[in-house]
This record gives sequence, structure tokens and C-alpha cells, in this order.
Amino acid sequence: MDLNLYQKLIKKIYFKKDSKRGLDKTFNWLIEEVGEFSRAIRKGDREKIKKEFADCLAWLLSVGSILGIDAEEAMKKYDKGCPKCGKTPCVCKDDG
Amino acid sequence: MDLNLYQKLIKKIYFKKDSKRGLDKTFNWLIEEVGEFSRAIRKGDREKIKKEFADCLAWLLSVGSILGIDAEEAMKKYDKGCPKCGKTPCVCKDDG
Repeated sequence: MDLNLYQKLIKKIYFKKDSKRGLDKTFNWLIEEVGEFSRAIRKGDREKIKKEFADCLAWLLSVGSILGIDAEEAMKKYDKGCPKCGKTPCVCKDDG
Repeated sequence: MDLNLYQKLIKKIYFKKDSKRGLDKTFNWLIEEVGEFSRAIRKGDREKIKKEFADCLAWLLSVGSILGIDAEEAMKKYDKGCPKCGKTPCVCKDDG
């Protein structure tokens, strides 16, 4: 499914609550989910890892929606390969 | 563009470096990007905010790829509305 359809889906489910809660508090939720994702990775629970990954993506899309960001428009940055070196695969040497 | 095509795009650009760097260090990069996104929001620079949003998404997809997660498969969690209350829009009361 298109990335922008996922953004619309998450928006339909959560935008009303997200916008009422506001940007900073919604960003905090994203951080909580990133923490839960990290914990799931540490514990090695495959199902939990997948769920927390989805939550991170959903909350990131939510934060983007509050900011008026179109996720697909933003991702154009990567259309022509690595934005720094312009190559696919990336050949940057500064990001070990 | 399909979410899984974005995942493939980022994989083509970065997977070799990402997998060599490993999961934990790639997760650290994700966290750095989330920090840059947060700073861009605080400073209110629209262009920078959009770029950092894309970087967060790209690094999240990278971490997912290292973990063998299929982003679209993971996002099925949201197919039927909020996974907690089952509604669209979400009517959960515990997440103000």
C-alpha cells in the first residue's frame, strides 16, 4: 500500500486526538514507542519487535501529519540514491 | 509509492553499510536522526523539518530491514483501525 495511504489511514484513526494533544506531546509518544521498540529488540521477542516497529512508524506518521508533512513528498529526498553522495549503494565514508 | 518499495529503495542504498555496521549502531543512528528531527521542530525550519522527518523514516526502515521486518506486513496491525479499541477514529481513553 502507498506510503501516503498509510499516512491517511493513521490520520483517520488518530489525527483528531493527535491534534488535540498537540505536537510536543505527540512527539513524546513517538519517543515512548521508540523506547518500547528498543526494549523489544533487547529482549529479542520477534512478535513484539514487529508490533513496536509498526507503532514507531505510525507515531512518526502522526507527528508528520501534525506538522503538515506529506511523507511521500518528504521521501523524494531519497529518490536519486543517497542524498549525500548521490549513489546507490551509498559510498559515503563518514557514517560508519 | 508503496511502503515496501520505500523499504526496498532504502535497502538498496544502505543495507550493505547498515548490516556491516550492525543493529545496535544502526539503531543509534535512528536515535540521532530523531534528535535532529526534534531540534528542527524546535527551531521551526520547515525545510529542515521535512528532511529530518524523511531521515527518521529512512533509518526506521533500515533498522526494520536489519531485523528482517517487512514494513507493510507489520503495519497490518492498523488495518482495522486502532489496535486497542478497534475503532476509526480511535476512542481509547487512556492515551491523552
